[in-house]
Amino acid sequence: MKFKIEKKLPGTLARAGMIETEHGVIETPAFVVVGTKATVKSVTPEQVKELGAQVVLANTYHLYLQPGDELIHTAGGLHNFMNWAGPTITDSGGFQAFSLGAAYGQSVSKIGSAIQREETSDQIAESPLAKVDEDGVTFKSHLDGSEHRFTPERSIQIQHNIGADIIFAFDECTSPTASLEYQKQAMARTHRWAERSLAEHQKLGGGQALFGIVQGGQYQDLREESARVIGGMDFAGFGIGGSFTEDDIGTAVAWVNKILPEEKPRHLLGIGEPQDLFMGVEQGIDTFDCVIPTRMARHGQLFTNQGKINILNAQFRSDFTPPEAGCQCYTCAHYTKAYLAHLFRAKEMTAATLASIHNLYFLINLIKQIRQSVLDGSFAQLKEQFLLTYKKQ
Amino acid sequence: MKFKIEKKLPGTLARAGMIETEHGVIETPAFVVVGTKATVKSVTPEQVKELGAQVVLANTYHLYLQPGDELIHTAGGLHNFMNWAGPTITDSGGFQAFSLGAAYGQSVSKIGSAIQREETSDQIAESPLAKVDEDGVTFKSHLDGSEHRFTPERSIQIQHNIGADIIFAFDECTSPTASLEYQKQAMARTHRWAERSLAEHQKLGGGQALFGIVQGGQYQDLREESARVIGGMDFAGFGIGGSFTEDDIGTAVAWVNKILPEEKPRHLLGIGEPQDLFMGVEQGIDTFDCVIPTRMARHGQLFTNQGKINILNAQFRSDFTPPEAGCQCYTCAHYTKAYLAHLFRAKEMTAATLASIHNLYFLINLIKQIRQSVLDGSFAQLKEQFLLTYKKQ
Repeated sequence: MKFKIEKKLPGTLARAGMIETEHGVIETPAFVVVGTKATVKSVTPEQVKELGAQVVLANTYHLYLQPGDELIHTAGGLHNFMNWAGPTITDSGGFQAFSLGAAYGQSVSKIGSAIQREETSDQIAESPLAKVDEDGVTFKSHLDGSEHRFTPERSIQIQHNIGADIIFAFDECTSPTASLEYQKQAMARTHRWAERSLAEHQKLGGGQALFGIVQGGQYQDLREESARVIGGMDFAGFGIGGSFTEDDIGTAVAWVNKILPEEKPRHLLGIGEPQDLFMGVEQGIDTFDCVIPTRMARHGQLFTNQGKINILNAQFRSDFTPPEAGCQCYTCAHYTKAYLAHLFRAKEMTAATLASIHNLYFLINLIKQIRQSVLDGSFAQLKEQFLLTYKKQ
Repeated sequence: MKFKIEKKLPGTLARAGMIETEHGVIETPAFVVVGTKATVKSVTPEQVKELGAQVVLANTYHLYLQPGDELIHTAGGLHNFMNWAGPTITDSGGFQAFSLGAAYGQSVSKIGSAIQREETSDQIAESPLAKVDEDGVTFKSHLDGSEHRFTPERSIQIQHNIGADIIFAFDECTSPTASLEYQKQAMARTHRWAERSLAEHQKLGGGQALFGIVQGGQYQDLREESARVIGGMDFAGFGIGGSFTEDDIGTAVAWVNKILPEEKPRHLLGIGEPQDLFMGVEQGIDTFDCVIPTRMARHGQLFTNQGKINILNAQFRSDFTPPEAGCQCYTCAHYTKAYLAHLFRAKEMTAATLASIHNLYFLINLIKQIRQSVLDGSFAQLKEQFLLTYKKQ
């Protein structure tokens, strides 16, 4: 994997660049489409490509349990298995280990946190099914209750079997409600796990790029320490993990990116609302992943330049305009709000497909515009213009 | 609408032809894809077209209730509303009136009959919610229990609002368990409703083609009488309606098609298993519609040349071959049984999409081969060869 910075935006941490992988180039800043179980929910790979997506992220925890990483390896790896020829990413499974409900010696649930990184956290966060120790995490499958164990070495082995272009070091993702003392311990453990992940990755060899993950919660000194320690290791790039609140996320990302080595790409894990894209790019983020566009879509929520709309609102029953006037996506080019409102009321699966295509296109088109604005220096205007009309919810 | 017969197969009633509509040509024999609620379940119109489908049938009953035929009219008609530029058909709503549970003065349920014409008969057949009288049928919506009434005139008005290329006269579809006496009465009523449908259609004008429906149950004299009466009216084509058993269907279709005017197209309503396509074509059918390929697909059943397979069988978990070796469909070109088995186990919506594409392609490719065999005289060989390996279930 190679990373090239094309342009830096003066007075900010923003940059536009290119990540070259064996399966193609990712022009950054980029939005990474989430395909948790080796499929982007309700959308085919051709539709994902057509809407402009460059890269797909699958979840190690889910694929390890079902259908199993060995099976994906036998199938020729994730790309072959899911029919996605472009770049791919897997996370480390660490977040899921955390969201299964355990923190070291505590039982801290992730419910109530702002982060939304994977599809089943709602259902599995209800009961603490996992235990973290120095060596790794033992957890119970949300599918059948069977017991499993991830260690840094195991996570890397599984990710090598799955075979994504970019993989992540095994980390512990702490709760925003955890104490400073616990955050310190967890961060130190994440750093030791990073070393072990790197060692296992080097031992196994191959062409995958391993990214380290910076933790440290909401504390500036911890975030900066984590950025120095992880940034000093021989990773190909970095992820910024953890839970944030809407108010502190920009600050926390800036603390980290001022320290991380500039010449390596930075991924913001599980974050991807429109306003987050502007914030993240401005603070030096290159890639984002988030389930929000597809999850919202399945519930009938659509992005527009004015904010999110709920297609089930009565007013849309007879609205014969597209979800977003002027939008160039497949859905807006061919369908009206009235048709989508009908499909959602009729509980037709195509409803989720059409809404997902629109929402994914919306974010991908937005980040393309942001990229262009970094290249041509109009970032501040674009941001002001967009946030003027876009109503957060 | 124009119908042209290109070739007749000596010694049979089979013919190959072309139906020309305002929205394109249907090469016959053809399989009509069912899109009950103005969408082919889990498949986009582009995917429907790419798999080779020529024509889509939507259900008048369903669209009348949701989103309403007036709304579809305002949207510019069915083609615009659902983004399907090719030929379309609507049924009359009569079958649903019947499957809502009523026959004239009786309460005959359709449960147990071989026919499968629409998507929700399972759920609504449980309670008799409709009453047939000479003028029409009064029924309760399966959605909210509200009372509605279809008459021949109302059915035609609704179908004119929806705007499909081919529409059907309002008929009463009797149960195979109905008495001879009741079948006679119902058939006579269907004939009177056919006259009224025709009169309303002529009054409303426009370019849609109206097909009459032949009824008569399992009785040769009634079927022949119905074919003579309906065949003598000024319809653009004909549908053969009613319930059949596997053993009697070929005979019943032959009785009718020997009498119907040869120069007009004939549609077999709600029938479309592979063996039915051979039987129907041999007995003079030009078009078929059936929900089986998409309904089966949603339950993980796939067509193969050896018969249906259930993708959830344990053996397919690690089967890295396509659903059907040599199949040219999108699904078989890009995915393995192991991947489909994973998607179905993971309850991913894409599972239904990929399985539906394969099943629809299978039937459409089969009927294309049948058409070619009528043109080149190899029908008997194709039929023998196919039925030798294909196991009915």
